[in-house]
Amino acid sequence: MCLLIFRLKSSTWINMAGVRRFSKVGFVGLGNMGGHMARNILKKGYELTVFDIDKSAMSNLVKDGAKTASSITEMVKDVDVLISMLPSNQQVLDCYTGDNGILSSVKKNVLLIDSSTIDPFVSKEISIKAEKKEVKFIDSPVSGGINAARDGTLTFMVGGSNANFEAAKSILEAMGSRIVHCGDVGMGQAAKLCNNMLLAISMIGTAEIFNLGQRLGLKENVLNDIVNSSSGKCWSSELYNPVPGLLPDVPSSKNYEGGFSTLLMTKDLSLAQSAATRTDALIPLGSLAYQLYKMLNSHGLSQKDFSIIYQFIRGKC
Amino acid sequence: MCLLIFRLKSSTWINMAGVRRFSKVGFVGLGNMGGHMARNILKKGYELTVFDIDKSAMSNLVKDGAKTASSITEMVKDVDVLISMLPSNQQVLDCYTGDNGILSSVKKNVLLIDSSTIDPFVSKEISIKAEKKEVKFIDSPVSGGINAARDGTLTFMVGGSNANFEAAKSILEAMGSRIVHCGDVGMGQAAKLCNNMLLAISMIGTAEIFNLGQRLGLKENVLNDIVNSSSGKCWSSELYNPVPGLLPDVPSSKNYEGGFSTLLMTKDLSLAQSAATRTDALIPLGSLAYQLYKMLNSHGLSQKDFSIIYQFIRGKC
Amino acid sequence: MCLLIFRLKSSTWINMAGVRRFSKVGFVGLGNMGGHMARNILKKGYELTVFDIDKSAMSNLVKDGAKTASSITEMVKDVDVLISMLPSNQQVLDCYTGDNGILSSVKKNVLLIDSSTIDPFVSKEISIKAEKKEVKFIDSPVSGGINAARDGTLTFMVGGSNANFEAAKSILEAMGSRIVHCGDVGMGQAAKLCNNMLLAISMIGTAEIFNLGQRLGLKENVLNDIVNSSSGKCWSSELYNPVPGLLPDVPSSKNYEGGFSTLLMTKDLSLAQSAATRTDALIPLGSLAYQLYKMLNSHGLSQKDFSIIYQFIRGKC
Amino acid sequence: MCLLIFRLKSSTWINMAGVRRFSKVGFVGLGNMGGHMARNILKKGYELTVFDIDKSAMSNLVKDGAKTASSITEMVKDVDVLISMLPSNQQVLDCYTGDNGILSSVKKNVLLIDSSTIDPFVSKEISIKAEKKEVKFIDSPVSGGINAARDGTLTFMVGGSNANFEAAKSILEAMGSRIVHCGDVGMGQAAKLCNNMLLAISMIGTAEIFNLGQRLGLKENVLNDIVNSSSGKCWSSELYNPVPGLLPDVPSSKNYEGGFSTLLMTKDLSLAQSAATRTDALIPLGSLAYQLYKMLNSHGLSQKDFSIIYQFIRGKC
Repeated sequence: MCLLIFRLKSSTWINMAGVRRFSKVGFVGLGNMGGHMARNILKKGYELTVFDIDKSAMSNLVKDGAKTASSITEMVKDVDVLISMLPSNQQVLDCYTGDNGILSSVKKNVLLIDSSTIDPFVSKEISIKAEKKEVKFIDSPVSGGINAARDGTLTFMVGGSNANFEAAKSILEAMGSRIVHCGDVGMGQAAKLCNNMLLAISMIGTAEIFNLGQRLGLKENVLNDIVNSSSGKCWSSELYNPVPGLLPDVPSSKNYEGGFSTLLMTKDLSLAQSAATRTDALIPLGSLAYQLYKMLNSHGLSQKDFSIIYQFIRGKC
Repeated sequence: MCLLIFRLKSSTWINMAGVRRFSKVGFVGLGNMGGHMARNILKKGYELTVFDIDKSAMSNLVKDGAKTASSITEMVKDVDVLISMLPSNQQVLDCYTGDNGILSSVKKNVLLIDSSTIDPFVSKEISIKAEKKEVKFIDSPVSGGINAARDGTLTFMVGGSNANFEAAKSILEAMGSRIVHCGDVGMGQAAKLCNNMLLAISMIGTAEIFNLGQRLGLKENVLNDIVNSSSGKCWSSELYNPVPGLLPDVPSSKNYEGGFSTLLMTKDLSLAQSAATRTDALIPLGSLAYQLYKMLNSHGLSQKDFSIIYQFIRGKC
Repeated sequence: MCLLIFRLKSSTWINMAGVRRFSKVGFVGLGNMGGHMARNILKKGYELTVFDIDKSAMSNLVKDGAKTASSITEMVKDVDVLISMLPSNQQVLDCYTGDNGILSSVKKNVLLIDSSTIDPFVSKEISIKAEKKEVKFIDSPVSGGINAARDGTLTFMVGGSNANFEAAKSILEAMGSRIVHCGDVGMGQAAKLCNNMLLAISMIGTAEIFNLGQRLGLKENVLNDIVNSSSGKCWSSELYNPVPGLLPDVPSSKNYEGGFSTLLMTKDLSLAQSAATRTDALIPLGSLAYQLYKMLNSHGLSQKDFSIIYQFIRGKC
Repeated sequence: MCLLIFRLKSSTWINMAGVRRFSKVGFVGLGNMGGHMARNILKKGYELTVFDIDKSAMSNLVKDGAKTASSITEMVKDVDVLISMLPSNQQVLDCYTGDNGILSSVKKNVLLIDSSTIDPFVSKEISIKAEKKEVKFIDSPVSGGINAARDGTLTFMVGGSNANFEAAKSILEAMGSRIVHCGDVGMGQAAKLCNNMLLAISMIGTAEIFNLGQRLGLKENVLNDIVNSSSGKCWSSELYNPVPGLLPDVPSSKNYEGGFSTLLMTKDLSLAQSAATRTDALIPLGSLAYQLYKMLNSHGLSQKDFSIIYQFIRGKC
């Protein structure tokens, strides 16, 4: 790619499409997802400074060429763009708006990209505070899971202004293969929560009919053929079937290991529930899906892929 | 088609694939679906006798060349194959096992095909009684709705022995384009109920996320693009979206007219609920979907397409 | 009681209130409940013939003075009144309408009392067949559980004509302390199912708020005081609280042993669900309660008291 | 009571139990409830200053002897105790923690009593900020509705320290007949939300069984007698039955006018849902109850008493 030629010239420069790009990148939150994402940024030749409260997480990245910061305040001083990948509303709030948080010391015009999955209203709250400091903020939650994070094929759902979306594109492309503009700040979160709520609902529905079918005497492969060529078809039935053995490479065929954990699905459903409560939106099935996944968590299944709902419904775990 | 040549030879004969076929066909139940189905049988050149308690329904078919019977008993005497298309468990039971029902006077070796959508346990009950009389019975509910019935492009989900399935194929092909063998008697019903329960669940889920997204500020077409290229994708979101205007030819874009009525969806969910109650199968979302569709029915929406759930969830009807 | 004097005179006679009474009693179904009930009939001095497919169950009653029959047909020949106490729709149907069932050989004018808890439509079906044979039939399910069965303090909810209700009163009083006339045949079942569905709902609700309260930091005894002096009060919160230790003698304080099993509650909810499906009645909470109790059953809790839902909701079992 | 003697001595003084009492009272929020509550404070002889953004609400109280303040800041300067009665989390937050809110200008040692029904976590948040200013804060939501507010017979559920509870008692007794200490700050809210969630659940359950019973042929008064002498009994079935005509003075017998509105019940369920989401508490029935009441609101029933759920379930509104 000829992009490399351009990148040598200056630390902040114009890419071929005329959009501002960055070279000094900061990354906060080097967990299961963030670690892979940061590594992909390094691979694309960016200068990267990382921060995590867990020092061992940082040392892994140092081996790959990253610099470390001793605090968020320190990191923020010297980056053009900063990406965060944190587990909860509260941690994102602390990281951005806390006493020694990003917004306390960030320079003007830096682009802040929060890839955490959080409440869209929290994204908006941070965005308003960022704007007061003349700092750019977008929310940019991801889908695709750990494998896509490792392979740099994540989907980013971006909420923010057109200009900020365009500005963020190149750095996001270092980590993902699909960058979608969903609207203003918060809309990346909104899109992710909506998608995942429907995913949970159709997964549970798929689990229910495969169990019901079996009890009625219907063979699983027959039901599989019928549903997936009919109006019952959904991503869960066709590409991620929760019945062991119907598809070769899905978690259900590997003892429900890997994939998207029940814990993370519950978290997303909890965020969708909060968003719906706040906006008075009716979500009867979404609410019940949330309750069911909470049940799975409290019954020791939090680390299993969320398709384990099939076994729970059968009373097998 | 060269099949015509064969058909002239005898009333019961061997088709090209070596399977027994029929020429004297009986049809009971000439409603919205049955009328079209019977007409397609006539079009394929079969000799058809029809019966319905509504005489005007019969007279329409007479114009197209059908003979009428004055009773089920009379009709049954002189047919090789009989197809029924009736609205409820009770009517099917009466028609088959009632005092003057089909089984009271049917000849040995006739093939009985029930295309009604009913409880799989009722299909089995009839089948057991049919077997005692040495009569063949299959259940063969359809999907595709009125348009497919008219166009002869229905899908038939067949429950019965291999031999009976093979025997039924040719006559079913006169009415449908896809004939699927689902297993023993009752499994056609089981497959249909399972598919439609998942359809209802994913439709409601789709309605929920489009309403939630909108309330969060997400544009409908953006959510549409994201969901349908992600893990939330389902038939309802992609091909039958309940939001008016997203897809051109679906009921939601035509004031929820046509399509698959709320009343029929409720009926199928009621059958799924009964089947699940009987087999102790857990269907938390399926049960709630059933309750929600019952609610729509009792709020005057029974004749609308089942995607009207979107408007109900928004409080717009 | 002076009733004894009267009873000596004839096998069928008039009691003090002018109501026809019985001396030759038959009893079918000597399980956990039926055994105690039959014993109480003996204690009141009735001549009792018992039948059960489990011979050891019969031999227990023989020690107490009962005669045994070798079949239902044999028993039926020589009784004035017959009581059945069986576990399921199918067993009641077989017992009454099967080839060698009660109705196949019963004499005219015998009074048949079914105390099983079953589908009200099954009660009606039997009643119609009984009427054709000029036999009297009432449904008369009980509440109170095993202790009340043993102590003769059951409540009987009776469905049947006024005359049959009056006729049945004296024999029911031998087993229970409260005999309530609920309406025509089936209404005893209807009343029981309705009561128990509300019981299940309010029990789960009680479990939910005590768990929620605790997580919010509210002390259990404080919540107990408030709810039970406020509008949240229900039988489950006040007299059968599912939180261990709040009440001394309830199952929750005795490791959820004794009481009313999850299995039986699930059965009653299943009957309520069927009745609601059949009558198109909306039962959103009743349906979900049924699903939840099915879940408990399939997770190994079927023999625990139904207040164990509190521990399930907490993820403690 | 000799309390009067003491009260004459000073504006802030010791009552017989040794607890500090108040004479200069402030009241913010003179809506349907607050107006009555403020009036009862005046009646007990307290010096009262009121504030509401709606000036006409203030002028009503002026007629009864209250002084008005032009802003919260002004009012706060000169009171010993301040009571707030506001409709939402946001309004309470603004009123207490906003730029010109109570905490911006309140003197040390003033007692702040928030009688609004809000999220217990919001109560705690305010309490922490109050503590930093050495101001006392308790949450003290009420039950009993408008009639009890008018008659001074409200129940107050108080969350706060023992000392603050004791301090607040006398002023609360001016407005209510029952003052219950529920624990630390937030526990008043917690108790109210838990009680009302169970109330909603048992009300819907009651509505479901009376509808189901009727469809099965059971007379309403028969079911009423049975349930209310059995284990299904709850406050809703016994004292607030949703079936018109069973009880003389309840909203259901007065076209569902008066009582506790669907809108307020939905609000309380929304707070319970938020609290449960935040604390990971499982509330399957509570969540569904919330969804159902949201449905009623969006179908034009927000101003009707919450027992209108009975008519909604019947499809009659």
